[in-house]
Amino acid sequence: MVSKNQKKLIKSLYQKKYRKQYGLFVAEGKKVINELLEEGVKLYSLFTIEDIFDVDQASKYIVTEEELKQISFLTTPQIVLAVFYIPYNGGIEERGLILALDDIRDPGNLGTIIRLCDWFGIKDLVCSMQTVDCYNPKVIQATMGSITRVNINYVDLKSFLTTKAKEFKVYGTFMEGKSIYKEQLSENAILIMGNEANGISESIQNFVQDKVTIPQFGINKKTESLNVATATAIVLSEFKRS
Amino acid sequence: MVSKNQKKLIKSLYQKKYRKQYGLFVAEGKKVINELLEEGVKLYSLFTIEDIFDVDQASKYIVTEEELKQISFLTTPQIVLAVFYIPYNGGIEERGLILALDDIRDPGNLGTIIRLCDWFGIKDLVCSMQTVDCYNPKVIQATMGSITRVNINYVDLKSFLTTKAKEFKVYGTFMEGKSIYKEQLSENAILIMGNEANGISESIQNFVQDKVTIPQFGINKKTESLNVATATAIVLSEFKRS
Repeated sequence: MVSKNQKKLIKSLYQKKYRKQYGLFVAEGKKVINELLEEGVKLYSLFTIEDIFDVDQASKYIVTEEELKQISFLTTPQIVLAVFYIPYNGGIEERGLILALDDIRDPGNLGTIIRLCDWFGIKDLVCSMQTVDCYNPKVIQATMGSITRVNINYVDLKSFLTTKAKEFKVYGTFMEGKSIYKEQLSENAILIMGNEANGISESIQNFVQDKVTIPQFGINKKTESLNVATATAIVLSEFKRS
Repeated sequence: MVSKNQKKLIKSLYQKKYRKQYGLFVAEGKKVINELLEEGVKLYSLFTIEDIFDVDQASKYIVTEEELKQISFLTTPQIVLAVFYIPYNGGIEERGLILALDDIRDPGNLGTIIRLCDWFGIKDLVCSMQTVDCYNPKVIQATMGSITRVNINYVDLKSFLTTKAKEFKVYGTFMEGKSIYKEQLSENAILIMGNEANGISESIQNFVQDKVTIPQFGINKKTESLNVATATAIVLSEFKRS
């Protein structure tokens, strides 16, 4: 059974404001929930059609398909939905490669980028305040559980870059930048990726010390740009390959 | 006005079987339609709220927002929808890098991969018969118009590889492959990317001469895999960067 209050709580967690207020977020699907449990993210409640999860009985609710449909955010609900406590955020490391996102709006893009950070061992992901919330259910689905292994901070990007620009070399991607394939890439670096439609905003551009680009091949050269998630994949690969 | 017959035709084009039967496909949005027109793709009919397109009057229909909503495949319809003739497909080149997809099912992934081919100057994209149809409306949206600049062939992948394996070096991505960063990559090559859930199918694996992988970094190494579109981005970048 799902009580009226539970239903109300879960529905409210679709909005960032309530996720912040309650310190809770929703994840759906066996795979993602399993990963979050394994990583030690604290469970608040679990609603499942099949009794397959070995979690505290008090927080587990066996529900019908119909009930799950009523609380799910997915068009095709999985067999299980869970509410987790938003984990404590550890602060930013002092060295290595930091990825900074300037107003990424698409939850699928942010999810893919978090998964890429996990793959490439990027510990710190810094997001501007206008970047989509990483506990948005669509982001959670797209990360496939890797969200627990990346340290995500929402900051005022300008202040962040003001304090960090001395210790780190700041890179940004621009259509007119220098070929990323030919640059000597610093190990202690901040890489800025910009908004889907507008790229890196003007006030942030001033902090960029090295403008790089992914060269375009072929005769046509008509593709306007790469999707920000695929561009991030290529640039992170370049930073790590050497 | 949109007639009843037009409505029926457009709705039917959501299905591959009717796209094949009529030789038509649907595209939505100013940007995508503009690109298709510019590339010389033949227009069948255009339904628009604003009279902004300089096309044959006989094929242009000014419609209301409500009418557009009725024929659109999008949750948030754009101001224009067009029906195009599926262009004639030119056959496969004899040299260079060919990308082969083994049962890619997600339209967004195929769209991103087509856009990547365009960016990296890959002329030939070969798809297994089980790969999602490239004229699927969701693929068309994701390609952002680059579909006209990539030569896409649906083939029996086994027969294709049987005839081509002598002239081309065949690469495939596998979790246990050799680091893509360290391989000498051949210029005349076929690169196979596998299905989202299952990777490269067993019957196709036999054709792979060189198994490659994108190395994973960091201490955890728990990310199971990269999304196929981001993995394709990184591997194509490696083929082209040298």
